[in-house]
Amino acid sequence: MSEKYIKDKFLYEGKAKKLYTIKGSKDLLIQEFKDDATAFNALKKGTIENKGIINNEITAYIFNFLKKNGIKTHFVEKISDSEMVVKRLKIILIEVVVRNIAAGSLLKKTNFTEGKVLKDPIVEFYYKDDALGDPLINDSHALAMGIATESDMKTLKKMAEAINSLLKPFFKKRHLKLVDFKLEFGKDSKGKIMLGDEITPDTCRLWDDKTNEKLDKDRFRFDLGKVNESYVEVKKRICI
Amino acid sequence: MSEKYIKDKFLYEGKAKKLYTIKGSKDLLIQEFKDDATAFNALKKGTIENKGIINNEITAYIFNFLKKNGIKTHFVEKISDSEMVVKRLKIILIEVVVRNIAAGSLLKKTNFTEGKVLKDPIVEFYYKDDALGDPLINDSHALAMGIATESDMKTLKKMAEAINSLLKPFFKKRHLKLVDFKLEFGKDSKGKIMLGDEITPDTCRLWDDKTNEKLDKDRFRFDLGKVNESYVEVKKRICI
Repeated sequence: MSEKYIKDKFLYEGKAKKLYTIKGSKDLLIQEFKDDATAFNALKKGTIENKGIINNEITAYIFNFLKKNGIKTHFVEKISDSEMVVKRLKIILIEVVVRNIAAGSLLKKTNFTEGKVLKDPIVEFYYKDDALGDPLINDSHALAMGIATESDMKTLKKMAEAINSLLKPFFKKRHLKLVDFKLEFGKDSKGKIMLGDEITPDTCRLWDDKTNEKLDKDRFRFDLGKVNESYVEVKKRICI
Repeated sequence: MSEKYIKDKFLYEGKAKKLYTIKGSKDLLIQEFKDDATAFNALKKGTIENKGIINNEITAYIFNFLKKNGIKTHFVEKISDSEMVVKRLKIILIEVVVRNIAAGSLLKKTNFTEGKVLKDPIVEFYYKDDALGDPLINDSHALAMGIATESDMKTLKKMAEAINSLLKPFFKKRHLKLVDFKLEFGKDSKGKIMLGDEITPDTCRLWDDKTNEKLDKDRFRFDLGKVNESYVEVKKRICI
């Protein structure tokens, strides 16, 4: 671990990551990636070998790419195998999902069959609330609950679309189809909205562009085997 | 029944209404209200005494009121106790729900408790598809499925908000709180979007403004008793 950042206090443990404060810094945190994996609103639990290390490396690579392309993110730098320094954000309690190809829960609210390529991306907002099971919401729910302003919602949608426009060709070049992915955003100390969390096979559906083989957390969700191997393969293709 | 309109062929039977063609007319239909009642995506079935007659009268009254206030609707005229003539519309496969007070399914996707008055109305779109259980969708789902255009979606939202602004004081004057309600829209032969379907205690949550007593289909849904009596009471208060 870099000498610049000295881990101070444990702050928060999520399903796949832990957060720590940094000695002498108010605006930065250490984000540590775990091997723990959960699915179906944490009804299914397990671990994926080396996931923490792999996802830290993938997130660092992708967030660097996004930063270079003008997307504001919380990423500062990777400081160890499973840790990165990030800006401290006040998380907006909305998960933004972008879909390019029909899969997962979309099949339950449309008549699309899995694999249907969407003419235009679908952007969805989910209310981050485990007790409610992260329900789909729309702008007017978010406003009514006071979890985001109208301008925040517009920014989330715009940024999600911009990130999708950058990531689709990024993955295509790496022989992966970006089927769908989940983003989380937060506000820094000045109220500026930026991308937080991670972008990994935990939060994206990624299919091999020739065989449509699933190379993401669906292998864990549905016991498809070769879970760790798929994460390794994705890392290899991404971090070139 | 009026001599002007001669019932021709049976066209369609829904959960609460039947549609018939009219001899010599391509653009008009007869909409007949039934006593049948269903709830929970038709898992619960029953009848409510005189509901057809009551809901025909209430819908005629409210649609007349909306027409006078500039809302385009399919309503032409009431022609018998349980029948009205309506313009033939190509129905848009979206149910638009407007909420002023938290109740029903909103309690499952937010932390609002029943009765919470919303600062601004919530407008929701549901995909009319029984097999999928009428799921909540957003604009991008509707566009992706090709069930409405971006301009259609804007019109639906605007019209729903305009109707809510008219109906809230309309019901208040009648000592009823308009908690929430469902609207359906369609396009006439020229492609003009207008309000279709019905507005009744089947499609609105209506509470007494002093006691908060439920005076709508929730009495049937949750076996609260006095079902027919509540529909009669609502009709009495509305049609003055």
